[in-house]
Amino acid sequence: MTDARVQTLVQESKFLSSLPREAAEKLAAAARARVLRPGEYAARAGDPAFGLAWLHSGLVFIFFEMSDGSRVPYLVAWPSSVSFDGLLGEGQFPASSTALTPATFVWITREVAEEVAGQHPDLMNALFDYAVRQGELRAIWLGRLFSLPLRSRVRLLLARMAVEMGQPGEGGRILDFPVSHRTLAIIAQVSRDEVGRAVRELLAEEVIERIEGRRFLVPDLRRLLGPSLLESTVAAGLIPEIR
Amino acid sequence: MTDARVQTLVQESKFLSSLPREAAEKLAAAARARVLRPGEYAARAGDPAFGLAWLHSGLVFIFFEMSDGSRVPYLVAWPSSVSFDGLLGEGQFPASSTALTPATFVWITREVAEEVAGQHPDLMNALFDYAVRQGELRAIWLGRLFSLPLRSRVRLLLARMAVEMGQPGEGGRILDFPVSHRTLAIIAQVSRDEVGRAVRELLAEEVIERIEGRRFLVPDLRRLLGPSLLESTVAAGLIPEIR
Repeated sequence: MTDARVQTLVQESKFLSSLPREAAEKLAAAARARVLRPGEYAARAGDPAFGLAWLHSGLVFIFFEMSDGSRVPYLVAWPSSVSFDGLLGEGQFPASSTALTPATFVWITREVAEEVAGQHPDLMNALFDYAVRQGELRAIWLGRLFSLPLRSRVRLLLARMAVEMGQPGEGGRILDFPVSHRTLAIIAQVSRDEVGRAVRELLAEEVIERIEGRRFLVPDLRRLLGPSLLESTVAAGLIPEIR
Repeated sequence: MTDARVQTLVQESKFLSSLPREAAEKLAAAARARVLRPGEYAARAGDPAFGLAWLHSGLVFIFFEMSDGSRVPYLVAWPSSVSFDGLLGEGQFPASSTALTPATFVWITREVAEEVAGQHPDLMNALFDYAVRQGELRAIWLGRLFSLPLRSRVRLLLARMAVEMGQPGEGGRILDFPVSHRTLAIIAQVSRDEVGRAVRELLAEEVIERIEGRRFLVPDLRRLLGPSLLESTVAAGLIPEIR
């Protein structure tokens, strides 16, 4: 990726914009980025950890690989998720990760992160705040998602995908990449068959539409979620805005 | 609670023992503690947040109170959970919390926490590490718990309760307080009826026993969890040790 393109990504970063400005500028200048295709590994357990890394766009699945080859889910990282593993002193990733959708992540080496933290004592406080808030939002999201019956669960995750990753298009927001039942099953932690049934129901209700290339169109987020799920989701801070 | 009793709690604290020693000693000297009965509020949304607070023992349910009086779950705090809300600068709790079991929490005012952080710059790094790890473990726990079918879910949470809160007794580990189906339903996020069915099955299998006062005896954690659930749970760092 060209330096100019990386600097554009970095300027759009919700994470960097939450940090003290001078420190953020130094981190931005040293940032590197990588684009992942769906299924591609971001990292494998045991790989040296990036000092500080965040997901610019897309979804990344993080999991433990068991000795029999099965994957025990750890979490799904949403855009603006930050990995602080590389600052914790162990130096390697505890889990493996692959892209669930086209994804771009940005990282800064541990050396740079530590140097900038040394020059800007207020950086550590801001990283701490971000880490705590991120943990809170993940707990709220998982608690909410899994407390819902399956159909509402698929509604909620499609709505969040549309808000955070959808492109405004004719007739609604477009998830402009192939969205497989497998991807939805990983996020919802249910079987592919169950996701298939839920998706067919949502298609029949016309609250979502399939468009060319296994993509989805969400015509109206209000209709997809319904008033009560919409209200409580916005109130919990899980969906930043509904336009 | 007497100062001597508070100092005993503080000396046993996993959280404080993870901090730089001198800073931990200063925090310990300023600590205060409170005992909660089941159902009692620890805090209500909007209350001024404690600077730094952690759960010494017991379980606390944290939730959002909706305008119709219903409770939307946020999370269940397990022993050694730390609330950093009071350090984030907003000054009030975003959610309400009540004890699910007899519980004791310890807290330090924001003024003391900030004063000690000013004297010990390494404290912020240690708090950051603790917060990040706590977030990781919560995500692993929720991901694991909710990916299991109901019966295994109740097995897993009874096992964790036995490990973290059980007293060694004759014939196994004793959950030495009333454990209602309601409590288990909140942690497992399923209906009380479903918990009732799961508990009856576990009683019939004799992997748990009811003893006087609605308490539970867990004769053998290995038998409660079964070999594959036990192995993956220990491997994920969710259960610290099985004796």
